[in-house]
Amino acid sequence: MIDKESIEKKYSIGVDLGGTNITSAIINRQGEIASSLKIRTLAEKGKEATIKRIIKAIYENIAQSAIAPDDIIGIGIGAPGPLDIKRGIINFAPNLPGWRDVPLKKILEDKFNMKIFLENDANAAAWGERCFGAGQGINDLVCFTLGTGIGGGIIIDGKIYHGNNCGAGELGHMTVNKSGPRCNCGNYGCLEAYSSATGVKNRIIDRIKKGIKSEFLNFDNDNLFDSLRLKSIFQAARKGDILTSDIVEDAISYLGIAIANIANILNPEMVVLVGGITNEGNKLLIPLIKEVKKRAFYSNYKSLKIVIGKLAGNAGVVGAAALPWILNTYSC
Amino acid sequence: MIDKESIEKKYSIGVDLGGTNITSAIINRQGEIASSLKIRTLAEKGKEATIKRIIKAIYENIAQSAIAPDDIIGIGIGAPGPLDIKRGIINFAPNLPGWRDVPLKKILEDKFNMKIFLENDANAAAWGERCFGAGQGINDLVCFTLGTGIGGGIIIDGKIYHGNNCGAGELGHMTVNKSGPRCNCGNYGCLEAYSSATGVKNRIIDRIKKGIKSEFLNFDNDNLFDSLRLKSIFQAARKGDILTSDIVEDAISYLGIAIANIANILNPEMVVLVGGITNEGNKLLIPLIKEVKKRAFYSNYKSLKIVIGKLAGNAGVVGAAALPWILNTYSC
Repeated sequence: MIDKESIEKKYSIGVDLGGTNITSAIINRQGEIASSLKIRTLAEKGKEATIKRIIKAIYENIAQSAIAPDDIIGIGIGAPGPLDIKRGIINFAPNLPGWRDVPLKKILEDKFNMKIFLENDANAAAWGERCFGAGQGINDLVCFTLGTGIGGGIIIDGKIYHGNNCGAGELGHMTVNKSGPRCNCGNYGCLEAYSSATGVKNRIIDRIKKGIKSEFLNFDNDNLFDSLRLKSIFQAARKGDILTSDIVEDAISYLGIAIANIANILNPEMVVLVGGITNEGNKLLIPLIKEVKKRAFYSNYKSLKIVIGKLAGNAGVVGAAALPWILNTYSC
Repeated sequence: MIDKESIEKKYSIGVDLGGTNITSAIINRQGEIASSLKIRTLAEKGKEATIKRIIKAIYENIAQSAIAPDDIIGIGIGAPGPLDIKRGIINFAPNLPGWRDVPLKKILEDKFNMKIFLENDANAAAWGERCFGAGQGINDLVCFTLGTGIGGGIIIDGKIYHGNNCGAGELGHMTVNKSGPRCNCGNYGCLEAYSSATGVKNRIIDRIKKGIKSEFLNFDNDNLFDSLRLKSIFQAARKGDILTSDIVEDAISYLGIAIANIANILNPEMVVLVGGITNEGNKLLIPLIKEVKKRAFYSNYKSLKIVIGKLAGNAGVVGAAALPWILNTYSC
């Protein structure tokens, strides 16, 4: 529970802990960013070094903002990987080498005289869109975070839904094709293997290796993965490119199937999409909605708003910052 | 809200309104059936006739029980089809010809001096297992009703989850194969098209028509659908039958995929299976759990109990009877 004094505080801090960057932002009660700062994670330097980077980011963010620490209610951290949210522990994070059972909440509590909240990064993004983005006022909402991988956050009855042991919302690991490509999680045919940036790129690389040529796409054969850009892939596909068009079509139709499944299972009021692929705007949204319409129960489809998030790249950090303001978050 | 006087009442009535039979049962607070009665729906005689049959079933059930109506708190109805649960209206029921926007709650309120509750039949079954069956004490539970079709009920935080407009829990209409067989709902590749009794039978009939012979299965060519029995189909498949074994394998593996998807999306504590196919017991459960293990996140799988319901064919009617005892059921 939050005491009266805390409720009156004007600011909170959000941290988005990624494998590449750490972002810290101070937001006000309207979700506006008063001050933000991004530094490299330097994950390769190991756990202790990364923890120091997190602390440094928060300190520098407060310093540059000139906001009095007494005016800050607390710090919310959006972190990857399986978490023990209640105890504030990062159990494991694939992109943070050496991170095993790290009690990040306790570590930060010892450094800062503030309340610390730990949350899954996709849940934080869903919460950001719910509080200050496309989902304001919507109590039943599902958010897909479409990036390198695919995550998800489920808001039920105005609260983040965690499930039995904080494992809910793994939307990227819905099996959409029994005998589809292998996914990073070990399963085959997950949504992530088709519709994430990594999934799309890996499927294109497989085809390049099989000798399929592209008419429109430029890439560097010596540095294939990094030289492929989602935007260029979608552009090439729209021109009818042999290499990319089926893969982009699959990426969209499997995402449509996943959203239709969510519509039939959870019947939410809104599905919010965030992440790089949403830069495609209506070029993504129109075929996607068509697929959902084809697949979902009509009344579930009809009552569903499918929208692109409004916070762009900030959903995660803004949502993390909004955590200290919620009551009863940790039901799992 | 339920008043104090009502809470002290000892019995409630549940009605399971099916396309073939109407079952009425009076249960006590422990979920034990004090008296029950089953009559034919005679749906083909039309809406008015069926409504009279429902009223008759309830009256006769009370009469035969010798329980004083004053001791009965209310009547819960488990009904098929899209419902307006809040207003107590059956919008449409595929198996009840002529049923369009029938205000069943109001009709029964006018006949009986009791509170009436209307609920989707699969939600009622989930609620029955939650209150008095395999899911007692479990607050996050998903129930699959595996019968002619496939339905579902989701219990979140100890309450039936309805979604935005009472459309949640349509688990049978998860798309599990993009280009799978056509489903009754109009979509292709729904779970129901693979793993329901109808789905299994239809796929076998397609193969029989293509000239594929069975070594072990008996059926009547003039009355194919009705002469096929799920039990015999599973028996034949276990003997390695060419006609049936792939189809039974698909039925189980797609159901496993659907459960794994639910595990990854909702991370429930328990999945309860009810309906005819569960008579297969461990012959169903063992390969099913293997598929879920292969597909779901390990921690979501590890913490998940996958069980067969304990109320056999009574989950729906017992769950309907338990409706008058819950508060705040109607969140949608």
